[in-house]
Amino acid sequence: MSGNEPIRDVAHLGAVELFTPKPDESLWYFRDLLGMEVVHQSGGSVYLRGYGDYAKAPLKLTEAAKPGVGAISWRTISEQALERRVAAVEAAGLGGSWGNGDYGRGRTYRFTDPEGHAMELYYEEERYVAPPALRSALKNQPMKFSGRGVGVRRIDHLALLARDVPKNREFGQNVLGMQLREQIRFNNGETEIGSWLSTTAVHHEVAWVLDVKGGTGRLHHFSLWVDNREDVLRAADILRENGIFIEAGPSKHNNSQAFYLYSYEPGGNRIEVYSGSFLIFAPDFEPVVWNEQDRGTGVYWGAPLPSSFLQYATPDLPDPPAEPDVPVFDPR
Amino acid sequence: MSGNEPIRDVAHLGAVELFTPKPDESLWYFRDLLGMEVVHQSGGSVYLRGYGDYAKAPLKLTEAAKPGVGAISWRTISEQALERRVAAVEAAGLGGSWGNGDYGRGRTYRFTDPEGHAMELYYEEERYVAPPALRSALKNQPMKFSGRGVGVRRIDHLALLARDVPKNREFGQNVLGMQLREQIRFNNGETEIGSWLSTTAVHHEVAWVLDVKGGTGRLHHFSLWVDNREDVLRAADILRENGIFIEAGPSKHNNSQAFYLYSYEPGGNRIEVYSGSFLIFAPDFEPVVWNEQDRGTGVYWGAPLPSSFLQYATPDLPDPPAEPDVPVFDPR
Amino acid sequence: MSGNEPIRDVAHLGAVELFTPKPDESLWYFRDLLGMEVVHQSGGSVYLRGYGDYAKAPLKLTEAAKPGVGAISWRTISEQALERRVAAVEAAGLGGSWGNGDYGRGRTYRFTDPEGHAMELYYEEERYVAPPALRSALKNQPMKFSGRGVGVRRIDHLALLARDVPKNREFGQNVLGMQLREQIRFNNGETEIGSWLSTTAVHHEVAWVLDVKGGTGRLHHFSLWVDNREDVLRAADILRENGIFIEAGPSKHNNSQAFYLYSYEPGGNRIEVYSGSFLIFAPDFEPVVWNEQDRGTGVYWGAPLPSSFLQYATPDLPDPPAEPDVPVFDPR
Amino acid sequence: MSGNEPIRDVAHLGAVELFTPKPDESLWYFRDLLGMEVVHQSGGSVYLRGYGDYAKAPLKLTEAAKPGVGAISWRTISEQALERRVAAVEAAGLGGSWGNGDYGRGRTYRFTDPEGHAMELYYEEERYVAPPALRSALKNQPMKFSGRGVGVRRIDHLALLARDVPKNREFGQNVLGMQLREQIRFNNGETEIGSWLSTTAVHHEVAWVLDVKGGTGRLHHFSLWVDNREDVLRAADILRENGIFIEAGPSKHNNSQAFYLYSYEPGGNRIEVYSGSFLIFAPDFEPVVWNEQDRGTGVYWGAPLPSSFLQYATPDLPDPPAEPDVPVFDPR
Repeated sequence: MSGNEPIRDVAHLGAVELFTPKPDESLWYFRDLLGMEVVHQSGGSVYLRGYGDYAKAPLKLTEAAKPGVGAISWRTISEQALERRVAAVEAAGLGGSWGNGDYGRGRTYRFTDPEGHAMELYYEEERYVAPPALRSALKNQPMKFSGRGVGVRRIDHLALLARDVPKNREFGQNVLGMQLREQIRFNNGETEIGSWLSTTAVHHEVAWVLDVKGGTGRLHHFSLWVDNREDVLRAADILRENGIFIEAGPSKHNNSQAFYLYSYEPGGNRIEVYSGSFLIFAPDFEPVVWNEQDRGTGVYWGAPLPSSFLQYATPDLPDPPAEPDVPVFDPR
Repeated sequence: MSGNEPIRDVAHLGAVELFTPKPDESLWYFRDLLGMEVVHQSGGSVYLRGYGDYAKAPLKLTEAAKPGVGAISWRTISEQALERRVAAVEAAGLGGSWGNGDYGRGRTYRFTDPEGHAMELYYEEERYVAPPALRSALKNQPMKFSGRGVGVRRIDHLALLARDVPKNREFGQNVLGMQLREQIRFNNGETEIGSWLSTTAVHHEVAWVLDVKGGTGRLHHFSLWVDNREDVLRAADILRENGIFIEAGPSKHNNSQAFYLYSYEPGGNRIEVYSGSFLIFAPDFEPVVWNEQDRGTGVYWGAPLPSSFLQYATPDLPDPPAEPDVPVFDPR
Repeated sequence: MSGNEPIRDVAHLGAVELFTPKPDESLWYFRDLLGMEVVHQSGGSVYLRGYGDYAKAPLKLTEAAKPGVGAISWRTISEQALERRVAAVEAAGLGGSWGNGDYGRGRTYRFTDPEGHAMELYYEEERYVAPPALRSALKNQPMKFSGRGVGVRRIDHLALLARDVPKNREFGQNVLGMQLREQIRFNNGETEIGSWLSTTAVHHEVAWVLDVKGGTGRLHHFSLWVDNREDVLRAADILRENGIFIEAGPSKHNNSQAFYLYSYEPGGNRIEVYSGSFLIFAPDFEPVVWNEQDRGTGVYWGAPLPSSFLQYATPDLPDPPAEPDVPVFDPR
Repeated sequence: MSGNEPIRDVAHLGAVELFTPKPDESLWYFRDLLGMEVVHQSGGSVYLRGYGDYAKAPLKLTEAAKPGVGAISWRTISEQALERRVAAVEAAGLGGSWGNGDYGRGRTYRFTDPEGHAMELYYEEERYVAPPALRSALKNQPMKFSGRGVGVRRIDHLALLARDVPKNREFGQNVLGMQLREQIRFNNGETEIGSWLSTTAVHHEVAWVLDVKGGTGRLHHFSLWVDNREDVLRAADILRENGIFIEAGPSKHNNSQAFYLYSYEPGGNRIEVYSGSFLIFAPDFEPVVWNEQDRGTGVYWGAPLPSSFLQYATPDLPDPPAEPDVPVFDPR
């Protein structure tokens, strides 16, 4: 931001599309276990929302041959801001094309990040209005709290794998106008293992992390917010009682200070139930950089994350040969 | 207990029967909102359990013209202890008769407390075995945690109204062998407004409190346990979103230090969702006695309980005449 | 915002000064009970911080004849934004003067809101660097979590009384560029009782609420954030055990959905320990307006706020005459 | 219990003595970090209590060359019960001798369990009366809640290592009259790895677990109760910020369903901060037996306990030779 003013054209992460080869089981996971609400179905897609999301459907679940992430959609603060960001995307050579927008949204510009993940920019958004049976007793709540399962309040963030982290991180900063929040840099800072960025006060809305298997456009995890750490503990019980594989947590990250729980939804995608963390208001926030030493195990209280947390992503790839030619970094 | 050894023949409060004039709505409240499980139906009764109750069905919901409490059942520690307590009941002139026992229980002796509430003593109990679909992943848990609604773990205690508190309290101590835990005594200790007693380490399993309207055999409230205060806060949201009247809380009692939430189930009975409190292990525990001054508002953090908490019980009675002949005590 | 882009020049509420006639007792309250850290003393002022505040000292406690609020300071997103906001303040006729800035801050422009509360705008801010003994084990945390008392994380917001709410609310929106979040409007919307606004995703950073006693520049409350509702419950125990008057809570507001606890610090100011609530990301957020009917008691779960919540503010004023000439609104 | 009545002579675990080679640092850990209160000092010992313990001093910290456990003291329900249990101890050939009792207790019988851990039986106990500065605002609380550090409420249980688990478990059942709650049995039930027992509704007050290093009279851990899982999470932050080694947790055990946090106090003893779990009221409770398969990792949500949890105890012993002659069981 040296000298220049921060770009504040993107308002927030608006929606995420997940691919699943097991649409019925994935729907059961998000609706019956996580407690999200189905608002629309169309083609091979189901549209869902947390009880506190103001937009109609921030999660789109689409049947596909393999799990992974589809469109990642960002809402701008105005029509003018949308024009400015599209111009920046085109200037960066990542340009795509305009479309009519997905369910509940207006005209949308589709492009990719440098890694190749599908992204969208839009401004027009239909506010969700609950049908009578789902209306909340609380006037400022978009929908009734159902008390079903985990009770996800809203979408929070996602982590993407990339072969070239700096290139994608610079795209986030310079093209989308995100603020860099935290980084892992190894080898005296020369190797950027991962970067966490945000357009809001929320700690991060997106991370790009090194794909240790050299895959393309893969998803590390998608994260859903609950209000309390007790909700995360309760979520662990619910997932465990329903045979869902819990990969890690509940525990506390050092990066972001968040309280996490990672499980694999039946389609294969890693889903985080997430709370805690901290808000960042400083316009000149100085990014926190972790090296090999102060990174530790990636977990504040000490217990290490399992190796699958580094190796597994969607769509999955076979394990690397036993003797890799290049060193494998462990960004846990 | 001076010199004599404590009687420890009653193991714990085993089951409670509630009457309801609206059986379908009451069932919706306990099953869908509080998250209890239906295990049996018979005649006009539905049998329910919390996911952590070891007995089959500690709550029996019975259709009746008016709300209120039916049988209050106590399990003994052995057959011999059962015989001893029945002898004590008969010696106290409260004797009743033996029966075959309700669903899941063996032979049972039925009698009344001095106020006239129906009570039962039994030893034989069928342990609950969950059907495959409700089996827990946790071997020491009798049933799967469903994640539905409030998620009551087990029954905890009940509060009964009485016209003569000391007589009923003495019955609890001397006939059933309960330990007196707390009391409210006004007028320099002369007027016993309420007494809280228990046969276990749980703060109280039963209370007898003065019926300010002079009714007969009425119920003040029945209480269900959840593990965390967060569960009580979450319960308040669920009840509020479903149109249930919340009378008081979530807040913290001074008596018992418990974290409480009082609502009226559709049949009219006052139900408490309850957590916190403290365990009592001392064999010579010295009862805590509160007078007018140190009683305060009955609430630890300051806000008073509403007047309905004093006036309302089931079955309900009309309000007293505006100028009562006898002073009305406020045991809030 | 119709057609125009939102102004996003103010980054966040930066600091608040409280006046206290009992500086030692007030310091005990904030440092020993709430667990804040003293970072500086100068003249009659003590500078404090929460363990998660990134700025050096967002709370300044200044000895004065009467309690109340002093300077309310807003940080801008850049030097250019500072210039733009100062120009807007001057254009609005509320202009003041430049100064050197308080402890830890650069040049600062001082002015007043229409009601007369002292306000400041600044950009330059010294980031807090903890001395070795207070350094956190967590690299992204500015200071060690002490575990002392309540453990306030950061300042959150404040509520100001005003004789003319619309005028102050318009100043917040048009001059400072805040987003209006919620309002209470009585008499078919004609009487604006209170308005809640923010420059960040946090629900509100400031509210202007009708001064029912017609005072000048008074403070309703100042609010401090803790991460969990359990921290608020624990705070209530700590305050109660130390003889602090608890006015209301812990409970849940309908406005903002926050979990609150109001007490009076020894100097007389009403202080809120605050958690929960929800974040707002929509650039076109539609303000929530509550009228007499849907306002209810001001409390989501039902129990009313006490009348002192309406009547008391700092500095305090005598109660109005028994028969006021003008109707008194109850914005609870 | 087949046919016979349960023995209910022991009321509860009354006190535990820990040895520490670093008395000052251990005192800092229990008083300043865990928030316990010092009530007495005598010789090389300091006596401490949680704010909710009814006895004067359930934890005695004694300077010694090596860490480990000293006297483990059990309170009976009466003088007669004390006589009965002493007779049973003597009949079992574990007899010791009568003494005057430690601080706050009356005459005491000292003996050992079959493994050789020092144990005591007593009935007379002085109730704690707080000095004015430590008096609680809550009449039924023995002491003010200080809000300092973790805020331990009371002692809970301890786990002892033994070379012969069945022998010690039978002693607990038959001589002290404990109820067996859970067991780990490997090799088709032939090898008893650990047994958990209690005299109260609390899940377990003592466990005897196989000493895989064949030591003598060693301590696995001593456990202190906090009321909420949030308190355990908060404890982890406090311990981490103060450089205390966290061995495992916060997480949830399958055995006992408890929410745990294990750290090593500076003297070397493993201390658990503990909450959750469940109460057992059944007089005929059927012990839960875990084998190799259903034991899993010993942790409900999946992550394994570290190997130190199996290997480390106090006083510590060197690791076994690389190729042990006897198989090493892993009771995690």
